[in-house]
Amino acid sequence: MNLKLGFIGLGIMGKPMAHNLLRNGYEVTVYDVNEQTIVQLTECGATAAPSPKAVANVSDVIITMLPNQEIVKTVLLGESGVIHGARRDAIVVDMSSISPVVSKEIAELLNEQGMHMLDAPVSGGEPKAIDGTLSIMVGGNEDIFNRVESVLACMGKDITLVGGNGCGSTAKLANQIIVNVNIAAMSEALVLAAKSGIDIDKMYKAIRGGLAGSAVLDAKVPMILERNFQAGGRIDINLKDLTNVMETANAFEVPLPLTSQVLDIFQVLVGEGKQANDHCGIVQYYENLADVTVEKK
Amino acid sequence: MNLKLGFIGLGIMGKPMAHNLLRNGYEVTVYDVNEQTIVQLTECGATAAPSPKAVANVSDVIITMLPNQEIVKTVLLGESGVIHGARRDAIVVDMSSISPVVSKEIAELLNEQGMHMLDAPVSGGEPKAIDGTLSIMVGGNEDIFNRVESVLACMGKDITLVGGNGCGSTAKLANQIIVNVNIAAMSEALVLAAKSGIDIDKMYKAIRGGLAGSAVLDAKVPMILERNFQAGGRIDINLKDLTNVMETANAFEVPLPLTSQVLDIFQVLVGEGKQANDHCGIVQYYENLADVTVEKK
Repeated sequence: MNLKLGFIGLGIMGKPMAHNLLRNGYEVTVYDVNEQTIVQLTECGATAAPSPKAVANVSDVIITMLPNQEIVKTVLLGESGVIHGARRDAIVVDMSSISPVVSKEIAELLNEQGMHMLDAPVSGGEPKAIDGTLSIMVGGNEDIFNRVESVLACMGKDITLVGGNGCGSTAKLANQIIVNVNIAAMSEALVLAAKSGIDIDKMYKAIRGGLAGSAVLDAKVPMILERNFQAGGRIDINLKDLTNVMETANAFEVPLPLTSQVLDIFQVLVGEGKQANDHCGIVQYYENLADVTVEKK
Repeated sequence: MNLKLGFIGLGIMGKPMAHNLLRNGYEVTVYDVNEQTIVQLTECGATAAPSPKAVANVSDVIITMLPNQEIVKTVLLGESGVIHGARRDAIVVDMSSISPVVSKEIAELLNEQGMHMLDAPVSGGEPKAIDGTLSIMVGGNEDIFNRVESVLACMGKDITLVGGNGCGSTAKLANQIIVNVNIAAMSEALVLAAKSGIDIDKMYKAIRGGLAGSAVLDAKVPMILERNFQAGGRIDINLKDLTNVMETANAFEVPLPLTSQVLDIFQVLVGEGKQANDHCGIVQYYENLADVTVEKK
């Protein structure tokens, strides 16, 4: 049986992801608050529906890719939400990045109505959404995962079931802690080194092959040296993710002093109007404090 | 002309490094405060000298590999120090990890006496010292660097001249900031994830290929899951390095809040008697706070 798909949330990430499903021959019914992106997708073969509920009415699998957990709740549980239209045994795959606590709550409510839920947030950003090579971290039941794995494979490359409901969201939060604190670590190192007058590019090449080496270093040092802060991973999106991290950490009573400090740095940068910059703009916070610029010699 | 070498400081790192020089056919005169290691090296063909000054008397290149900058100063500038025995045009290669401010000061004093100095700290630890595959970050004059590059090549693989005197030490400090803050970032992520009940090994495999991937993650997650805290990079050595970082940062008026916090964590761990553990023992600080253990499922 070929699964009928619904896709709700056609933003920077959702649009190319839905495209990749259409390209692989799936029937996709779409909904978004932005009418214009709906038109773009219907021109590529998607069917438009007037509400999340209407999407659910005609779909075996409903995928959501939304900016924050409030919107996820409204779309899934609200008045014209998925929960009121979905058939028994329908599968909701929420690919948004939200708190694992909220992912679990939603899963329970959907289960009570005879539906299934997977939390399946992604990493890799817009380029990998377009290429269909996202990393997808999935939480939920293994049988349910097996039923949609070939759908996920149209959008991602590394697809890992990491545990039960909420575990996909937890893995994404862990990912965001590491990425953003690693960027801050790199920023402290670069700013100290720049202040001492060293050629940053030579230093980068001297240390990148050792224990200091990381994907962050290789992706972001060249951007910083070019003074290119075009996202990539936007500061406001990462601020939202770290806010979810701290909420979750508070719920679990886990103190995360470094993450909390990076969250503060993001708030300062947003206050300076830099919310749309790439998160490697963390270095600019340190540059301001130290009165130095990390640039090419 | 085959350079005559001196080697001072035959500890965990220095002993295998001196061995690699002997193995490559160099004449090496050695000194250490520990008589026993001197005997081990003379049995392998080294010549013993009674003081740093006496080493310098017979050497074209004097290599030092010492635990901290106080000892480096004593060995190079003290009463029976290298400076009182070295010939004109002799080259001192200090491979210890010390403050770049101190490296520069020493270089100036040696230059005044007609000697040359390179700061050439390493990364990679004991295993790479034994294999002769250390990363070596060098600061100093390019001509002087060219004269000793073949000597350094017996001990290391990636050998990079990163700038003038002090720049090798700066690169090492930058390296240590990144490594240790990356370990703390990973620890915050692992402890939050463990508390939520996720299978850490699966999560690690789901995120390691993305932007969260790093040499630290690949080296330390398996160690932590095995509860293996055997150094590797000792906590007390890394505490010393971060102390040098903060001294240098204060001299340059660069605030490093995350590094400073990791230094505090090291001090707590040393207070608990864990100074000889690997620096991935940072995770134990967080485990204590969160009352959870990061282990295999």
